[in-house]
Amino acid sequence: MRLSGVIPPVCTPMTPEYEVDTASLVRLVDHLVDGGVDALFVLGSSSEVAYLTDAQRRTVLDTVVGHVGGQVPVLAGVIDMTTPRVLDHARVAAEAGASGLVATAPFYTRTHPEEIRTHFRTIARRAGLPLYAYDLPVSVHTKLSTGLVLELAAEGTLAGLKDSSGDDGGLRAVVMGRDALSGEAPFSVLTGSEVTVDSALWMGADGVVPGLGNVDPQGYVELYRCASQGDWEAARAEQERLVRLFEIVHVGGSRMGGSSSGLGAFKAALYLRGVIDCPVTALPQIPLSEDEVGRIGKLLAAAGLL
Amino acid sequence: MRLSGVIPPVCTPMTPEYEVDTASLVRLVDHLVDGGVDALFVLGSSSEVAYLTDAQRRTVLDTVVGHVGGQVPVLAGVIDMTTPRVLDHARVAAEAGASGLVATAPFYTRTHPEEIRTHFRTIARRAGLPLYAYDLPVSVHTKLSTGLVLELAAEGTLAGLKDSSGDDGGLRAVVMGRDALSGEAPFSVLTGSEVTVDSALWMGADGVVPGLGNVDPQGYVELYRCASQGDWEAARAEQERLVRLFEIVHVGGSRMGGSSSGLGAFKAALYLRGVIDCPVTALPQIPLSEDEVGRIGKLLAAAGLL
Amino acid sequence: MRLSGVIPPVCTPMTPEYEVDTASLVRLVDHLVDGGVDALFVLGSSSEVAYLTDAQRRTVLDTVVGHVGGQVPVLAGVIDMTTPRVLDHARVAAEAGASGLVATAPFYTRTHPEEIRTHFRTIARRAGLPLYAYDLPVSVHTKLSTGLVLELAAEGTLAGLKDSSGDDGGLRAVVMGRDALSGEAPFSVLTGSEVTVDSALWMGADGVVPGLGNVDPQGYVELYRCASQGDWEAARAEQERLVRLFEIVHVGGSRMGGSSSGLGAFKAALYLRGVIDCPVTALPQIPLSEDEVGRIGKLLAAAGLL
Amino acid sequence: MRLSGVIPPVCTPMTPEYEVDTASLVRLVDHLVDGGVDALFVLGSSSEVAYLTDAQRRTVLDTVVGHVGGQVPVLAGVIDMTTPRVLDHARVAAEAGASGLVATAPFYTRTHPEEIRTHFRTIARRAGLPLYAYDLPVSVHTKLSTGLVLELAAEGTLAGLKDSSGDDGGLRAVVMGRDALSGEAPFSVLTGSEVTVDSALWMGADGVVPGLGNVDPQGYVELYRCASQGDWEAARAEQERLVRLFEIVHVGGSRMGGSSSGLGAFKAALYLRGVIDCPVTALPQIPLSEDEVGRIGKLLAAAGLL
Repeated sequence: MRLSGVIPPVCTPMTPEYEVDTASLVRLVDHLVDGGVDALFVLGSSSEVAYLTDAQRRTVLDTVVGHVGGQVPVLAGVIDMTTPRVLDHARVAAEAGASGLVATAPFYTRTHPEEIRTHFRTIARRAGLPLYAYDLPVSVHTKLSTGLVLELAAEGTLAGLKDSSGDDGGLRAVVMGRDALSGEAPFSVLTGSEVTVDSALWMGADGVVPGLGNVDPQGYVELYRCASQGDWEAARAEQERLVRLFEIVHVGGSRMGGSSSGLGAFKAALYLRGVIDCPVTALPQIPLSEDEVGRIGKLLAAAGLL
Repeated sequence: MRLSGVIPPVCTPMTPEYEVDTASLVRLVDHLVDGGVDALFVLGSSSEVAYLTDAQRRTVLDTVVGHVGGQVPVLAGVIDMTTPRVLDHARVAAEAGASGLVATAPFYTRTHPEEIRTHFRTIARRAGLPLYAYDLPVSVHTKLSTGLVLELAAEGTLAGLKDSSGDDGGLRAVVMGRDALSGEAPFSVLTGSEVTVDSALWMGADGVVPGLGNVDPQGYVELYRCASQGDWEAARAEQERLVRLFEIVHVGGSRMGGSSSGLGAFKAALYLRGVIDCPVTALPQIPLSEDEVGRIGKLLAAAGLL
Repeated sequence: MRLSGVIPPVCTPMTPEYEVDTASLVRLVDHLVDGGVDALFVLGSSSEVAYLTDAQRRTVLDTVVGHVGGQVPVLAGVIDMTTPRVLDHARVAAEAGASGLVATAPFYTRTHPEEIRTHFRTIARRAGLPLYAYDLPVSVHTKLSTGLVLELAAEGTLAGLKDSSGDDGGLRAVVMGRDALSGEAPFSVLTGSEVTVDSALWMGADGVVPGLGNVDPQGYVELYRCASQGDWEAARAEQERLVRLFEIVHVGGSRMGGSSSGLGAFKAALYLRGVIDCPVTALPQIPLSEDEVGRIGKLLAAAGLL
Repeated sequence: MRLSGVIPPVCTPMTPEYEVDTASLVRLVDHLVDGGVDALFVLGSSSEVAYLTDAQRRTVLDTVVGHVGGQVPVLAGVIDMTTPRVLDHARVAAEAGASGLVATAPFYTRTHPEEIRTHFRTIARRAGLPLYAYDLPVSVHTKLSTGLVLELAAEGTLAGLKDSSGDDGGLRAVVMGRDALSGEAPFSVLTGSEVTVDSALWMGADGVVPGLGNVDPQGYVELYRCASQGDWEAARAEQERLVRLFEIVHVGGSRMGGSSSGLGAFKAALYLRGVIDCPVTALPQIPLSEDEVGRIGKLLAAAGLL
């Protein structure tokens, strides 16, 4: 059976001392599961995985898998530069009881499509868990080609794709190519874009991995429900409400990196909504100012979330 | 006193099973130290640091620091995505007895100059070892600005710069800015370019960190010696011989990633010269073919190294 | 009234001597107008505008505007590096009787958002024709921001946007921002993506500028008609047929530049369909081989076009 | 005989109405020729060629070629997107009496090395003037490979290279490859970097094309003279003085595009030195503020030029 629906990348709440705040993390998991999501994705980009030490990654995995207790699948990001380092994370994730793994192409190194193919094949063969490719050119500076993704899907190396490239034409090509494969293992196409979910589902995508889903899981669940029932106009209306809410990620503007602005906004919103105790983001990110947090509050209120 | 001279980034020999080959690593260290190098840099890009697990990084550190026994300083790369993960590597390196640390700007995340400043300041404050900035846009997709480097030099955050950006105008601006700082902590400017060492030294750089120095440490030592004694014509002649030798990194061509071609060539050359037992590179790199290794052998012979 | 519907960027047929083949161009215009398109866009990227001399650009303008005789609007690309050069093209286009102008951000120079704003404002003020911004990062290496586009829309500088960035989330933000402007001049949002037209229209876009529309104008007209009448399932089915046809642009593969592969495919298809006399593309593009043209023929047949 | 020495890219002075100020242009040419330069390069990036209309380009050519009257060679930039448009500029330049042409790789289009080769070969064959390749990745977003440049040199297509890539390792590879060609047509290697001229000459480059040479031609002439006579220490001292002067290009900072800041600085300096009547730069560039012009004045004074 292929993965579908709303699978938020779970933020990682922190204490003022930059440690994982497990109490807040548990509340966030409840907020998401109670919100109706279909699965959870821990240790993704929205989880600040790039900023978490291995010990913190382990804490997140144990906390979430333990608390969820099998109610929904828990995918684990295994984000690192190359195959051997990814395999280490995969071992930890498997031991912790993750339901599947999410890996990017190699980064930091100057890579080649043949090497990306070897990378995913090696992880799939060794890890013993369903493997999802994470297409994230803004971070890894490589775009996965449609041809490579479909080849790895057809042979059973990949169980799915999380497409955060923003290239919906490419997503459609994968969906149509996937549908043309017959008698193969299931392959799930998930969009990572918060603002084109209705159209991605319209094209045949199976689900969405929305960072903004931390802030408003019910919104994405409702959007998915409407689309599944064929009520596309209601889906679009809900999507447009979420597009306006997504404006929170731009509040930090150009005085900080894009990661700081986006991740800081999600955490500020979760803090304002009472889900987590502290909106702090990991070093070296620049924190949002009090004024900026105030503007996020206004956008939350406009979306009916405060 | 500031670091100067020839500081090769030490390759990491591996067994056919992709484990660190400590016996070969020890021989390589001897080859370099006997070749007259001034210090060693382990766990840099040429060391395949991006491909080494944390356990393998630890093995490399312990092996090299232990074997060197203080004859020359040993710098350790602490290459990872963000500050908290770099700090973990820094702790390990300090425990292992490294003489200094080498860190890049954050990568994978979308970062900002203010965040890069915080990144280096946090590492320097917590690590307790001299910190060298590693400017490597091809891997981290950010260029360190002259202004930021000089600010961090002036305040004592950085003990030096390893400039692998290929931008010798920028290197010169750092050297001249450094010389204009008075009464400050020592700040060492090192070029990471194998092919413009004579000119970098001419501009006032203190030394070089040449990947190709694994293959021919004597060549770089001789080049540095000539330059130090003011015999620039001899330095240039030696540099030009090394430029011709550097052709080995292009043998792999476009059928593999640039990392595979370059690192594979260094290891093939070390293997052909009898320094290491096996030329294998880490996964998912594409290995050089037998024919390509043969062409590397011819280039070695032409350089008088076989 | 704002521009809407199907507005193909008209290919520029050439003789074997690389001159504009006006007889073929006239036949192509008839093919498009008879196919039911709503307007024509000459001298865009798909017209090989980057390869046409000023005299050839003038020939194209005169031929198309003269032949169309006001049946449908004719937009003219005024593609050049900076404002003064664009203004020269704008004067020629106005004299020739174009209905509107299409301009990109400056390129070749290292530009700044403030300069892009001045660029569009100056063109709009001097040209005396409706001005459409052409967002084409793959060519000009700058992405127009949503904020800038909406500011220029609100003040009446721009009459519309041709979005060829492939970023459908950005297109949606422009559509929603445009709808929030009240009592303003009309502003038309057109997608330049051949493969996400149904979803762009679903988001509220007004029309499409499809290079592939040269080959199959009826297909895009039908797609637009279905969407306009709310028959989205039929629109999607037609879109999916066109996605499969779009495969022709990849036939040239990596042995040539992306422009050669795409433009060569459109012209080969027009040649095979009997619309133009010769499939030649301008220098220095690499031509498709006979075998590649054969594969394009098979894709045309599969789409019911041969 | 191959071109060598100091060949400044001549700025294009403008009136407050953005027309070519031919009186100032003539004074600038005298300033350069009297300063001892070996040739002139008109219609390059520093000439604002990207901003000049074809009529203005013609005015510049006629003014400079006419005034110089054969005292020194005059190279002409033929900067445009593709071969056919470049050929039009080449015809005009030949008619005007230019001594040679300078062309980049194609831009705006997505190009391929085979197409770049065809581009240069076609221009060389048709133009009837020596052709220099202009390697300028910051503008054309393609780097000319060493292999391609040497192939085109060996076959006589190219008479030289203006290397503005900032990659001095690549420049050295071209110089060494050029020296290995025997019995071939002369091939001149010129650096476009203002701040590494001594080292480029040291590597064997034949000359320099310095934008900053507009401001201080005597400086670059002296630098070249010292290097030619083997007085490298004097060359370096002069180079370092010019590096400090080059600081003027950063005065505009990040509130404008890099082109505006650099070109505005050269013109402000020429204005302050009394060479040209007006420091205006072409649209849509942002002008330097009065305060910024004042800071440029201080840097000129520090360099002994006011």
